[in-house]
Amino acid sequence: MTLLGDLFGAPAVNEIFSPSNTVQRMLDFEAALATAEVQLGIIPTGAAGPIRAQCRADRFDLAALADGCARAGNLAIPMIQQLTGLVAAVDTEAAQYVHWGATSQDTIDTGLALQLRDALALIGADLDRLRRSALDLADRYRSTPIVARTWMQHAVPTALGLQFAGWADALGRHAARLAATRRLDVALQLGGAAGTLATLDGRGVELGAIVGAALELTVPAMPWHAHRDRIAAVATTLALLGGTLGKIARDLALQSQIEVAELSEPAEIGRGISSTMPHKRNPVAAAVALAAAIRIPSLASGIVSGMVQEHERGLGGWQAEWESVPELVRLAAGSLHHLMHAVGGLDVDAARMHANLETTGGLIYSESVTQVLARHIGRPEARSMVVAAAQRAVAERRHLRDVLAADASAMRHLTSSELATLFEPSAHVRAAQALIDRVLDSARSSTNADDGQ
Amino acid sequence: MTLLGDLFGAPAVNEIFSPSNTVQRMLDFEAALATAEVQLGIIPTGAAGPIRAQCRADRFDLAALADGCARAGNLAIPMIQQLTGLVAAVDTEAAQYVHWGATSQDTIDTGLALQLRDALALIGADLDRLRRSALDLADRYRSTPIVARTWMQHAVPTALGLQFAGWADALGRHAARLAATRRLDVALQLGGAAGTLATLDGRGVELGAIVGAALELTVPAMPWHAHRDRIAAVATTLALLGGTLGKIARDLALQSQIEVAELSEPAEIGRGISSTMPHKRNPVAAAVALAAAIRIPSLASGIVSGMVQEHERGLGGWQAEWESVPELVRLAAGSLHHLMHAVGGLDVDAARMHANLETTGGLIYSESVTQVLARHIGRPEARSMVVAAAQRAVAERRHLRDVLAADASAMRHLTSSELATLFEPSAHVRAAQALIDRVLDSARSSTNADDGQ
Amino acid sequence: MTLLGDLFGAPAVNEIFSPSNTVQRMLDFEAALATAEVQLGIIPTGAAGPIRAQCRADRFDLAALADGCARAGNLAIPMIQQLTGLVAAVDTEAAQYVHWGATSQDTIDTGLALQLRDALALIGADLDRLRRSALDLADRYRSTPIVARTWMQHAVPTALGLQFAGWADALGRHAARLAATRRLDVALQLGGAAGTLATLDGRGVELGAIVGAALELTVPAMPWHAHRDRIAAVATTLALLGGTLGKIARDLALQSQIEVAELSEPAEIGRGISSTMPHKRNPVAAAVALAAAIRIPSLASGIVSGMVQEHERGLGGWQAEWESVPELVRLAAGSLHHLMHAVGGLDVDAARMHANLETTGGLIYSESVTQVLARHIGRPEARSMVVAAAQRAVAERRHLRDVLAADASAMRHLTSSELATLFEPSAHVRAAQALIDRVLDSARSSTNADDGQ
Amino acid sequence: MTLLGDLFGAPAVNEIFSPSNTVQRMLDFEAALATAEVQLGIIPTGAAGPIRAQCRADRFDLAALADGCARAGNLAIPMIQQLTGLVAAVDTEAAQYVHWGATSQDTIDTGLALQLRDALALIGADLDRLRRSALDLADRYRSTPIVARTWMQHAVPTALGLQFAGWADALGRHAARLAATRRLDVALQLGGAAGTLATLDGRGVELGAIVGAALELTVPAMPWHAHRDRIAAVATTLALLGGTLGKIARDLALQSQIEVAELSEPAEIGRGISSTMPHKRNPVAAAVALAAAIRIPSLASGIVSGMVQEHERGLGGWQAEWESVPELVRLAAGSLHHLMHAVGGLDVDAARMHANLETTGGLIYSESVTQVLARHIGRPEARSMVVAAAQRAVAERRHLRDVLAADASAMRHLTSSELATLFEPSAHVRAAQALIDRVLDSARSSTNADDGQ
Repeated sequence: MTLLGDLFGAPAVNEIFSPSNTVQRMLDFEAALATAEVQLGIIPTGAAGPIRAQCRADRFDLAALADGCARAGNLAIPMIQQLTGLVAAVDTEAAQYVHWGATSQDTIDTGLALQLRDALALIGADLDRLRRSALDLADRYRSTPIVARTWMQHAVPTALGLQFAGWADALGRHAARLAATRRLDVALQLGGAAGTLATLDGRGVELGAIVGAALELTVPAMPWHAHRDRIAAVATTLALLGGTLGKIARDLALQSQIEVAELSEPAEIGRGISSTMPHKRNPVAAAVALAAAIRIPSLASGIVSGMVQEHERGLGGWQAEWESVPELVRLAAGSLHHLMHAVGGLDVDAARMHANLETTGGLIYSESVTQVLARHIGRPEARSMVVAAAQRAVAERRHLRDVLAADASAMRHLTSSELATLFEPSAHVRAAQALIDRVLDSARSSTNADDGQ
Repeated sequence: MTLLGDLFGAPAVNEIFSPSNTVQRMLDFEAALATAEVQLGIIPTGAAGPIRAQCRADRFDLAALADGCARAGNLAIPMIQQLTGLVAAVDTEAAQYVHWGATSQDTIDTGLALQLRDALALIGADLDRLRRSALDLADRYRSTPIVARTWMQHAVPTALGLQFAGWADALGRHAARLAATRRLDVALQLGGAAGTLATLDGRGVELGAIVGAALELTVPAMPWHAHRDRIAAVATTLALLGGTLGKIARDLALQSQIEVAELSEPAEIGRGISSTMPHKRNPVAAAVALAAAIRIPSLASGIVSGMVQEHERGLGGWQAEWESVPELVRLAAGSLHHLMHAVGGLDVDAARMHANLETTGGLIYSESVTQVLARHIGRPEARSMVVAAAQRAVAERRHLRDVLAADASAMRHLTSSELATLFEPSAHVRAAQALIDRVLDSARSSTNADDGQ
Repeated sequence: MTLLGDLFGAPAVNEIFSPSNTVQRMLDFEAALATAEVQLGIIPTGAAGPIRAQCRADRFDLAALADGCARAGNLAIPMIQQLTGLVAAVDTEAAQYVHWGATSQDTIDTGLALQLRDALALIGADLDRLRRSALDLADRYRSTPIVARTWMQHAVPTALGLQFAGWADALGRHAARLAATRRLDVALQLGGAAGTLATLDGRGVELGAIVGAALELTVPAMPWHAHRDRIAAVATTLALLGGTLGKIARDLALQSQIEVAELSEPAEIGRGISSTMPHKRNPVAAAVALAAAIRIPSLASGIVSGMVQEHERGLGGWQAEWESVPELVRLAAGSLHHLMHAVGGLDVDAARMHANLETTGGLIYSESVTQVLARHIGRPEARSMVVAAAQRAVAERRHLRDVLAADASAMRHLTSSELATLFEPSAHVRAAQALIDRVLDSARSSTNADDGQ
Repeated sequence: MTLLGDLFGAPAVNEIFSPSNTVQRMLDFEAALATAEVQLGIIPTGAAGPIRAQCRADRFDLAALADGCARAGNLAIPMIQQLTGLVAAVDTEAAQYVHWGATSQDTIDTGLALQLRDALALIGADLDRLRRSALDLADRYRSTPIVARTWMQHAVPTALGLQFAGWADALGRHAARLAATRRLDVALQLGGAAGTLATLDGRGVELGAIVGAALELTVPAMPWHAHRDRIAAVATTLALLGGTLGKIARDLALQSQIEVAELSEPAEIGRGISSTMPHKRNPVAAAVALAAAIRIPSLASGIVSGMVQEHERGLGGWQAEWESVPELVRLAAGSLHHLMHAVGGLDVDAARMHANLETTGGLIYSESVTQVLARHIGRPEARSMVVAAAQRAVAERRHLRDVLAADASAMRHLTSSELATLFEPSAHVRAAQALIDRVLDSARSSTNADDGQ
């Protein structure tokens, strides 16, 4: 029972890292190991059946496992003891072949690899959904003007679709990184006491191939007990994703401010209601994703720090992963899950965006005006002229367009209709559309490439 | 049910952060709030009793709380809803005054403060025990020579007691830091919707004083909803402690190596036994403390990163604390708890230390020899002479003392007995004792000062 | 020459960590050591003068030091070699007593302690200035209403002065933490090869007292070569400060948004001008402080991670401090320095704050209305009534006050003038003032206490 | 002048991030931009030549740049001002077209991308060299027995070659990750004020293609001003590498301990010499790599934290990269460079490894004995028998083989020659060789695949 797990995590991924499923995944390794050892004649034919039959987490006493773990220093030792006891109650001969030739770390690492395999599949699917939503929004809002903001100030106009294209573009890169880490880093661990597979009569390599295939895990060239770059690569890959999700959440949070009011998370019953202010809708998805974006880099940092492990199997670094890797995965999955829903049902207020473009009284068009005037009078003079007009506009609370319209030196180089056009966002929106198209095209081709795999 | 909690944590501190006690501590705030509000006449006299009576975590549906939390975005909202329902079932009038004038964050932060108050008390007590063990060891082994190692190489002799004095000296500083943070940073939170206590009829300040006194928490000058330096200071104070514990654990791990074999964790039944190598005793306490020393700095980093909170109450930064602060406290407590036991029952092999001093064939005394010769022939020449002798000793696998004894130019300045004395650790041990005494004295005076408080 | 040092740092603190001053501070240690050793008769009377005379960084070849450092593995070794050479050129006898009885780490750590002593003094002074600015602002704007924002949404009104009081209150805690770390953690290092002071003829303890006094550093009970909690405590103390500065900067950044426009950094010539948008003023101080608040927690995390050091002097952990501690100090000092200027000259737009209060058409007063109605009809019914009115107000784009005024069931319990009062921020502002006063009072008494020290 | 740069960095990579080259790389962007804009007819034909001619860092006043940067808030603004001035001194017309259509961030990001491109190429080459050394060592020591250590205790025998194969195998994965990030993440930045390329007359996309090709950078689908996953991916990729290098360094440090003495860094004149202990050789490369492994994860964490950037271009997060990305790259390059030399000239003491295998008096063979006896008497009984014999061996300080030889119940199932074989490392070494071969084969095929690209 954890009170905050459902807030910060995604239900299906939480389930993968539940105590019961953690034990089940370690048992899946033991079952596959015994089965393969029978297949290769390493252990007696009759041993696999009874072992497999007991490899069910619901037969295990989890409280006793927690207790045994605190004494033994890892979870596999008491689990193997319980498993041996369960098998022995049925078949004492078979009980002798439980965990044959393997070491605790083989069980724990392979159990984790199975959990990562499943979690990354779910995360990949949610990522795909979020990316599709962003691509749809990019396309739908390809012509909606909005102010681009830099340094948290108004800069120049852009198209709203380009903001969403930026999200989608980054999410596409994360999909590629995730696919790479799933392929390379989610691997079987099987090495025995010191990574040599020495007690397996020279059949260790063959055994690994069979167990890996059965568990659908990458079979590594050799055991990686003290080389944790695979685990750390999964962690950093998800940390990068968490960073982009945090960026999206920050955008949502800023654009949901009452004074800005351009975007908001979908309204859902009971969601984000304040206990004292009934009118207030808190952006819960953004909060979750921002919290995750604060916590995940640190968790990843701890996991990478822990890579400095001693000899064949280390002291401390490996143990440091046991809680922090599941936590990081859970947080990334939760951040993604919440944002997938929020972006999928995003409320967009295009009218308000249009109004916000005018907040500065035309100043956001000053760069465009400068550039046009520069063709006639050179950039330095054009800039001086526009700066002076802008200062007058601010001082007199007038629109920059009106100030310029009344400025003979400026109007020498501009017709009234040219001036009016300069103060419209359409040129910026058109320029943005070319980029939106590139992102849409590139997403299409990458998806086709994925289909072709 | 968490499988690894008992391995990485300390049982009593784990209990403080259990779901049930987390809810209870928030309820303690609600009970104290209602009681004080009655006392000040802010709410009707009859309201406090029914509210207090329901402020018992065992009456709450924790699964429903977790579910409500995932929707509302924090734990207080569904908890207050359940509390209101429980009170209303008994007294609908009183139910209206549940949580009167407070905001969710008041409940959550004060609940956390109560947990921190209790956890820091337990941690302080364990810290005191560990420090006393280290002081005892420092005194007991004040005359036991051991090689001092720098850059993981043999340097010169020292006294084993000085190693323990170093541990105790650092632990004393941590005790002082912990006392300071308990005094300053574990504070009541009470501000209402935006930290102004505006709905409390101008009695907010008085109310805070009463609630704070009832809950034995520091009463702050003003609410600190978005100023998280207090929480972060608790985190960094424990992180510093975790660093020193990691240093002690690293010493244990290194000195427990079979080739060194100077120290080892106490043997306990079932503790640290390997699943494949029955002869092997794994240093479980060191593993736990080293793992904690990897994870804690990152958790603290995340908490400090989260201090950048928006406006009166932030978005994301606060939420980022909810799981990571308890986790950090648990890990620090667990690291301390394990080491307290390990150091309390430490196995010391003085004979082996003596043997290790001789590993380099007298080379660790070369600085002493140089210094004595330097008085006669100047440092440059003394150094050259000793370096040459040392090289000969290594090349010919002879003891440096024997090489020098056969070197007429060296023996011109040394008697045989002076030479023999130079190759004994006693001078180093004597020098170390003066420092051990300073640490013992300083610990005595600081303890007296504490008693006098 | 570093291109970004002046942007991210404070000039005076940058100077403290310049290559030249880094060398000078190590030389100050060597000079004080030789002087004290003469005083105690450990080295010949004539040795101190020639050594002291050469302890001037401008006589050293810094490029050769960098080169020697890369080979020797630390900076003290080549520096002592150059120093010995410089002294020997004048007095070969004295040259033999350079660095007598000390080890490289004594020089490096004490040099760092001197730099920290100086840097913390400058930081303390800037912190004091910033805090005073915040207190002044708290007092000046004690009656200025502003909307309090939570979860980045409008909550209820508050006083602007309370925002500044919150800054000042937190800065006061940081001043106390900084004073504590300056007193306890900035300490002399003097231990010789393995921390026993063994080559100092039993005068090591006396020697430390004299050298510490001469250098105005805390004299520790024993050397702390491998116990880095002091250094890490300086780092975490500054990290906490950096977090609060980041919070202040985040407030500035948010309230400087064009749509909010409540606060802005002082306009200075050439400051924060965009290269393409002449009208735009970038909040440079906020950018610097926010960047620091991202980087500092990580730097601190690395320094705390590095505490896990081996034996009497470690391998890797100590070296990890050499660049990161100065960097962290520089960043904290720079963040503080920029914000001190920005807050000192802060532009406040009270009219805009007043306008922003009305953005939600009175919804921010709904809690107050609910509370008053609750006295008559109970909280549940009051809440329903207000929620319904609020929904109507939003749907019909009317002010909540007007909706309620037209609602007979509500007006049964309220006079028109009561209603009007409920929609004014004065009650909130009054409540906030009581808290502002507490902060001002507490600042006064803490300053008096400091004066009395 | 930085005193520690050559210790912690690699000379060639340090040079890439020197102030002068940092400016040069930004100028390379400006030159390529002007050239391409002429090519597309965006700016007058005559403008490119004069601009290109001034794009030489040695013409710039770096101190003035640092100063201007502190005021403007970024380095590009004063650099473009200086560039404009330099061009104007020759050709006022051309000066108007400096930086045409681009924004400061385009210059800074593309400058960084060029530095990363060059640095990653150097790092890739060093990585390749280190990996080859490890592969060579794996092959050379394929038959050298050594004790495998787990939890910092002796476990069972293995082959030294397998330790090196483990290094090489991990380094191979890093090479693949590095190649991926070089291909995907080192990209041109070109977006103009708000990422729309709006002032480029609809030629922005074409322009990007030309500039990217000229600078040999990946051309992105759209600008990535506020999406920093590319930069963060470079950082985390190097952080993973740094973790493996730290693991290798930890192995070196542990195996270089005087009591273990199996491996040592190559002796070089003046390298790692202690200032007080002439006989001592400090493992400088290990110290550098371990320090880097402490610092790099934190730097990466800061960079990933900084990904949460606002809108089109953020405030604080981007600025947080400016010093930390170069620092991280420098540290990774330095760690790699030092280890490349240390591993390339590694001293291996196979005799000592053989001696260390015997430290436990045969206990490391107890698993093998148990397994053989288990075939006859079942695992539980075999384990009891061996545990009892092991306890006797320890108590009586006898070799386990001798205890068993005298144990009739054990010898019932073993011949003397079988017993002798069980206490030899050859079976373990043979098992390890199969894995070494897999790593060598896999390295060969991956290298061939690279050649074929």
